[in-house]
Amino acid sequence: MKLWQKDYTVDQEIDRFTVGRDRELDLELARYDIQGSLAHIEMLTSIGLIEKEELPQLAAALKAIYQEVLAGKFTIEDGIEDVHSQVEMLLTERLGEMGKKIHSGRSRNDQVLVDLRLYFRAEMAAIAEGISELFQTLQSLSQQYQHRLMPGYTHLQVGMVSSFGLWFGAYAESLTDDLQLLQSVFKINNQNPLGSAAGYGSSFPLNRKLTTELLAFDDLNYNVVHAQLGRGKTEHFLAFALAGIGHTLGKLAMDTVLFMNQNFGFISFPDELTTGSSIMPHKKNPDVFELIRGRCNQLQSLPAQVSQLTGNLPGGYHRDFQLLKEMIFPAIESLKDSLAIASYALQQIRIKDNILDDDKYIYLYSVEEVNRLVLSGMPFRDAYKEVGRQIESGDFNPPREVQHTHEGSIGNLNHREVNAKWERIWAGFGFAEIEDKISQLVS
Amino acid sequence: MKLWQKDYTVDQEIDRFTVGRDRELDLELARYDIQGSLAHIEMLTSIGLIEKEELPQLAAALKAIYQEVLAGKFTIEDGIEDVHSQVEMLLTERLGEMGKKIHSGRSRNDQVLVDLRLYFRAEMAAIAEGISELFQTLQSLSQQYQHRLMPGYTHLQVGMVSSFGLWFGAYAESLTDDLQLLQSVFKINNQNPLGSAAGYGSSFPLNRKLTTELLAFDDLNYNVVHAQLGRGKTEHFLAFALAGIGHTLGKLAMDTVLFMNQNFGFISFPDELTTGSSIMPHKKNPDVFELIRGRCNQLQSLPAQVSQLTGNLPGGYHRDFQLLKEMIFPAIESLKDSLAIASYALQQIRIKDNILDDDKYIYLYSVEEVNRLVLSGMPFRDAYKEVGRQIESGDFNPPREVQHTHEGSIGNLNHREVNAKWERIWAGFGFAEIEDKISQLVS
Amino acid sequence: MKLWQKDYTVDQEIDRFTVGRDRELDLELARYDIQGSLAHIEMLTSIGLIEKEELPQLAAALKAIYQEVLAGKFTIEDGIEDVHSQVEMLLTERLGEMGKKIHSGRSRNDQVLVDLRLYFRAEMAAIAEGISELFQTLQSLSQQYQHRLMPGYTHLQVGMVSSFGLWFGAYAESLTDDLQLLQSVFKINNQNPLGSAAGYGSSFPLNRKLTTELLAFDDLNYNVVHAQLGRGKTEHFLAFALAGIGHTLGKLAMDTVLFMNQNFGFISFPDELTTGSSIMPHKKNPDVFELIRGRCNQLQSLPAQVSQLTGNLPGGYHRDFQLLKEMIFPAIESLKDSLAIASYALQQIRIKDNILDDDKYIYLYSVEEVNRLVLSGMPFRDAYKEVGRQIESGDFNPPREVQHTHEGSIGNLNHREVNAKWERIWAGFGFAEIEDKISQLVS
Amino acid sequence: MKLWQKDYTVDQEIDRFTVGRDRELDLELARYDIQGSLAHIEMLTSIGLIEKEELPQLAAALKAIYQEVLAGKFTIEDGIEDVHSQVEMLLTERLGEMGKKIHSGRSRNDQVLVDLRLYFRAEMAAIAEGISELFQTLQSLSQQYQHRLMPGYTHLQVGMVSSFGLWFGAYAESLTDDLQLLQSVFKINNQNPLGSAAGYGSSFPLNRKLTTELLAFDDLNYNVVHAQLGRGKTEHFLAFALAGIGHTLGKLAMDTVLFMNQNFGFISFPDELTTGSSIMPHKKNPDVFELIRGRCNQLQSLPAQVSQLTGNLPGGYHRDFQLLKEMIFPAIESLKDSLAIASYALQQIRIKDNILDDDKYIYLYSVEEVNRLVLSGMPFRDAYKEVGRQIESGDFNPPREVQHTHEGSIGNLNHREVNAKWERIWAGFGFAEIEDKISQLVS
Repeated sequence: MKLWQKDYTVDQEIDRFTVGRDRELDLELARYDIQGSLAHIEMLTSIGLIEKEELPQLAAALKAIYQEVLAGKFTIEDGIEDVHSQVEMLLTERLGEMGKKIHSGRSRNDQVLVDLRLYFRAEMAAIAEGISELFQTLQSLSQQYQHRLMPGYTHLQVGMVSSFGLWFGAYAESLTDDLQLLQSVFKINNQNPLGSAAGYGSSFPLNRKLTTELLAFDDLNYNVVHAQLGRGKTEHFLAFALAGIGHTLGKLAMDTVLFMNQNFGFISFPDELTTGSSIMPHKKNPDVFELIRGRCNQLQSLPAQVSQLTGNLPGGYHRDFQLLKEMIFPAIESLKDSLAIASYALQQIRIKDNILDDDKYIYLYSVEEVNRLVLSGMPFRDAYKEVGRQIESGDFNPPREVQHTHEGSIGNLNHREVNAKWERIWAGFGFAEIEDKISQLVS
Repeated sequence: MKLWQKDYTVDQEIDRFTVGRDRELDLELARYDIQGSLAHIEMLTSIGLIEKEELPQLAAALKAIYQEVLAGKFTIEDGIEDVHSQVEMLLTERLGEMGKKIHSGRSRNDQVLVDLRLYFRAEMAAIAEGISELFQTLQSLSQQYQHRLMPGYTHLQVGMVSSFGLWFGAYAESLTDDLQLLQSVFKINNQNPLGSAAGYGSSFPLNRKLTTELLAFDDLNYNVVHAQLGRGKTEHFLAFALAGIGHTLGKLAMDTVLFMNQNFGFISFPDELTTGSSIMPHKKNPDVFELIRGRCNQLQSLPAQVSQLTGNLPGGYHRDFQLLKEMIFPAIESLKDSLAIASYALQQIRIKDNILDDDKYIYLYSVEEVNRLVLSGMPFRDAYKEVGRQIESGDFNPPREVQHTHEGSIGNLNHREVNAKWERIWAGFGFAEIEDKISQLVS
Repeated sequence: MKLWQKDYTVDQEIDRFTVGRDRELDLELARYDIQGSLAHIEMLTSIGLIEKEELPQLAAALKAIYQEVLAGKFTIEDGIEDVHSQVEMLLTERLGEMGKKIHSGRSRNDQVLVDLRLYFRAEMAAIAEGISELFQTLQSLSQQYQHRLMPGYTHLQVGMVSSFGLWFGAYAESLTDDLQLLQSVFKINNQNPLGSAAGYGSSFPLNRKLTTELLAFDDLNYNVVHAQLGRGKTEHFLAFALAGIGHTLGKLAMDTVLFMNQNFGFISFPDELTTGSSIMPHKKNPDVFELIRGRCNQLQSLPAQVSQLTGNLPGGYHRDFQLLKEMIFPAIESLKDSLAIASYALQQIRIKDNILDDDKYIYLYSVEEVNRLVLSGMPFRDAYKEVGRQIESGDFNPPREVQHTHEGSIGNLNHREVNAKWERIWAGFGFAEIEDKISQLVS
Repeated sequence: MKLWQKDYTVDQEIDRFTVGRDRELDLELARYDIQGSLAHIEMLTSIGLIEKEELPQLAAALKAIYQEVLAGKFTIEDGIEDVHSQVEMLLTERLGEMGKKIHSGRSRNDQVLVDLRLYFRAEMAAIAEGISELFQTLQSLSQQYQHRLMPGYTHLQVGMVSSFGLWFGAYAESLTDDLQLLQSVFKINNQNPLGSAAGYGSSFPLNRKLTTELLAFDDLNYNVVHAQLGRGKTEHFLAFALAGIGHTLGKLAMDTVLFMNQNFGFISFPDELTTGSSIMPHKKNPDVFELIRGRCNQLQSLPAQVSQLTGNLPGGYHRDFQLLKEMIFPAIESLKDSLAIASYALQQIRIKDNILDDDKYIYLYSVEEVNRLVLSGMPFRDAYKEVGRQIESGDFNPPREVQHTHEGSIGNLNHREVNAKWERIWAGFGFAEIEDKISQLVS
């Protein structure tokens, strides 16, 4: 069944090629499609396009399908083009002609727009949860290991003294920036495109503010052409948010793989978290973090994929946009999975003690020594030269201790301030209010 | 001169290769380097690392150099490695040994971090201004041409009736989303990395909150390792913001080129805004919009460039990051230029009248006709079929009029609401307060 | 079962995360894994690591599994890690301990390398066939419509007279360049990595030239570290070849969508090849070509995906490489599908007649007129000005005819020469010899 | 001066924006523009569009300008639009009206096409030379250090014994693959677009085979529309070739940086090749290789930049293509520079002796031990388990020796075969013949 079926039949090959993986991907949208329809029919009733008596029946039938979706019993049947058609077909089977009324005043274009916005919103909330768990894991490890020193590198060369407190805490604080970007995309996404029809509005006297309210959107995409421009553009924004998180998590994974390497040997994981080799019996490989790193790189190439698809296309809907689902949906799953497994694995990390006792790390203290001379009155440039001279001549033998006290340094990790930064951002999402409104809509 | 000069001399070839275009690009940072130094010396004085008597002299000398920068008289001399060294050298020439004190308690790593943050902040403000001008141009064109109808396309096929009011207004509203993302990056960027030294802090009792306040940062990058992770990551965020704007402006440019094509023929520009052909005497080409489109595509590939450079690098500073300047600095210039020229050209646009009179646009009214039948009581699916039948048999002859009244439709463009959305976001930047603090710092 | 199973059990979550989609994707490799094993056991026998009597039994068992693969009866069982383990397990079930011998002298690293090379080789051959079909379709349409004129555009502005002969023929000739690049990748790919083990060779006295010969490779990847570096690098090369074809086919699709637009109206397709709209009864949309275009953009972002994953990774195998399969395998399918559907649809194209009769195309003849004046003795720049003057004053009324005779022009399409170019490149692949050797190996 | 100047003047702002960096970049094309013109006028004479008596004067004047270009005395004057206009203006200044004849029978579109092809050809030859020098450096280091053992890593974990002979030799052999791809692009590029005019040919009876021969092209881009499609597509192909080399060289640089790290400590460079830190007096940083790595990443993002610009543009020339020069020209310089500095620096590498004596590398021998047991009759899986058991219990104490003899292994590096592979590919470029023809043309 196609909502636009005419008297001719579409060529089978063409049908297979154009539908592609859409039936499978559309399943993700089913619950949001019904949320959208529930708001739509309430609005249609308010403007007289659905009879007051019909509303309860339509709503009840939609809510029943909603429960079937949640229970995993909803499928898109062969020969049905997409999720919107499947829902409409079920409604019509159950309610007769009345079921067809839900398509009044909208097009599949704005219907899929609203489905995607609701789906992205829910998934961004789930991602925020995943970041939150990782943030807390890292903050807690940072506290636990705040006195465990490690070398700090610049240019991948032994540089200055660092600590696991700093290392874990750094990635925790980086996540606050990623959360901030995610929130911005969350808010851009949370605007109502419903009512834009095929991107040019319609002659129906729709009340778009009502659906905005019912669906817990923050605002409208007012201009209907703009609402349609959001297809592709929203995915582009979302790709930025995912890529940003991928940047942080991927670097954390790279560090982890490096520090597990025997030449570093700073950390290890229980055997059950590693994998082996088919020919080298000694191997305990860090596959989990290699795959997190790889997945994060996939996320980081998302913006390029989206912009390659959408670049140079003029305004208006193009079927090319369908392929955005193939790019974005699995990326969302991949990120949620990577965040969860990272938290899970890091909670089991083991950290070597007394790393800095090794002689190759003695130069870590050269800056300390320079600064000690400076604080005792020698000009910086002279102190720098003096320590350089000691190192060249082999006389360098500094006390192995660090006394850093300023904000954010080894001795002063500012966990409280970073937690406060996190809380401040988190509060800006407004998850609770959205959940309330949606639960009211569907129950 | 190199701040780290030792007894050996760096190979000339190596020096040329490693410095690259850095001297030229660093000039952009000069004014921000001095802003950073002014805050730094005030802070050093507060913790006793600079004598109270020295501060006024150092500050005066720095402010003098600042004026030289503004007047275009500042250069980085041959043999001087970078902007930081040049400023320090000038100070030392003018004040003797005292000049060297400004490097206490920081490294070039956090110095360049803070320079970049201040530079990016100023440039993002300039970009916001550019967006603002374009937004106002588009809103005003949308109002001016709200009754000028045009075809609306889906799948690049004649679809439904649209208008120039909708078209201009759509891009205006799209810019509100881009502004929102830009603001998020603006805020992520506006955190103070100063004091992180080479990425591992130092033993000096720095007061990082004081420099945060003096430099009008919103907050600190607390964790010093996190502050250093910001190199590359900040540029990644910035690349997202630029790419987002590129997405919108590029699409507007593509539409413009298409509508100038003779087969569309909707719009034109005065001859002086077009260019000709060396062999075709009739040509008046839309080069401006082609180049805006091209520049927007360059912007859209920025995230891929940044993430390719930074991906899979472990934590800590790497010299690779120097190349980020080559990517980002020209992109910023290019975007500001493109925004300005787009506003300038669009203000001179000419729009054809009575476009829809042409017979090929009659089908634009098919949805109107379907909806008319629906509003008169026919079920939607039947109305759809009836109009389809009329079209196939050649009987389709609808009244050529549209009556759209809902929010964001042809007849109800919601300029006021979109302006309000814009104002709400704009207020969130807090430009005025930042400007106040900086002007206090440098004068 | 894991080839590297130790006494501890890998955590279930870790197992799920690390295996990912590998079982499903590895199915594609099954037939090639067996080809590799057949060559490997023949070589092991030649150096005494398998007994002469064992070879026929092992070979027969492998060939039986090969037939099962071809018949679609081969699966990778739950709990089996990958295709290599599945094949080895089947062998051991059927032949006992002898089955385990096939893993001597190799690692899963070189095994998957050789599987991928053979798979890529076969798939590139299939892609070459797909290009060939499209090339012939285009050449034949070019011949059929060589006298059907159309406007030629520059800057998307009406420029000079073109023809459908030129248009179809241009894309045909472009495919010769893509075929050339594909061949280069085909040859780079067709080198034998088998024997490199985990990337560092082994102490077995392997005869790598023998497996090179048996598997129809052109040459060896000699250096074993180089052979391992090929993982990721081969996929990068392949991504280039796919992206190159995507560039050509995507542009052809864009032209097609544009020319189907009513403002152009140059071409159409039978209704069965188009799709409709759920609200606009008149729509016949070019979804096939939009999706080809979109798929070609996905192909064009492949190089960025691959290089983002592999960039900055040091040498040696990394588990990240597993994710390359997820990128490349579906891309290959997508390209083959797009090539086939493009040929299929283009064979049904309908082309409008007398397009150039429309007055808006009169300026197409301006260059002709300039050149006519030049050939009659007027200097080019004067002729250019004279025709420009006629156009401005409205006096321009040229004879509507074109007489182009030089190589590759409207009147001289050089089909024969382009076909010859194609044939010359095609011959360079050497498909027949490869097929012969492989069919000898497996039968 | 503009070749297409009309009676109106182009707006200054528009002029600045559209010309952009073109004057500066066009300087690179000057010598090739003249080569193209020399062939063009010889051809025009052969078909009677230039008088036989005029040819020697025009040729002499062009050759004089050519010498000025070589001597660095050629500039593009303010107010002159591009290199083509500058050359034509000089000719006209020197020869009067006759100078204008060189523009007959071509457009700036095919003129820039041919300039770019000749420029790319010359630059690809220079790049091939750069690869060649690096190849020879690596092969010679591989020979020199064939007995210097090092750890081989998989998953960045200590894996098996490797050697510097293998390591250097691996990157050498990888370059043969890059050379192969470069050659394919070289050949695709080396086809003659001249005569395609604005992409639709012309009514002049051009002899395109003659210019093909004179300019040492291998073949024609026959179809004139195809010739024009080459703009953007050629750059895409070239970007692939550059990115391929970037992949190899970037990984070599990453390895180098890693091996210079103190935790590895395998290699070092003379102090003059390293740089220091402004606060850490002990630092000797590997900036050269970090910047090579970064530059190689820039190269690897080129394909994405090009395809983002060109994707979804319909056929025919678009001004967007001008921006390709900004992407490609600096990338070519950057690659040549990086190849040269890599060869230069690697020739001074210092390699630590007896690396494997450190106890952390003992497990490198585990596969040797397994294989020794296998060769003595134990089934592989049992040997694997036995060695695994020894490792777990701390009994593992293998003889520290490796005996690898097969092709491409530590003991058999096949330098001769790899050199032969290189020579075979190199011969396919045909550089000598091209140089001969061009030197004949310009002298």
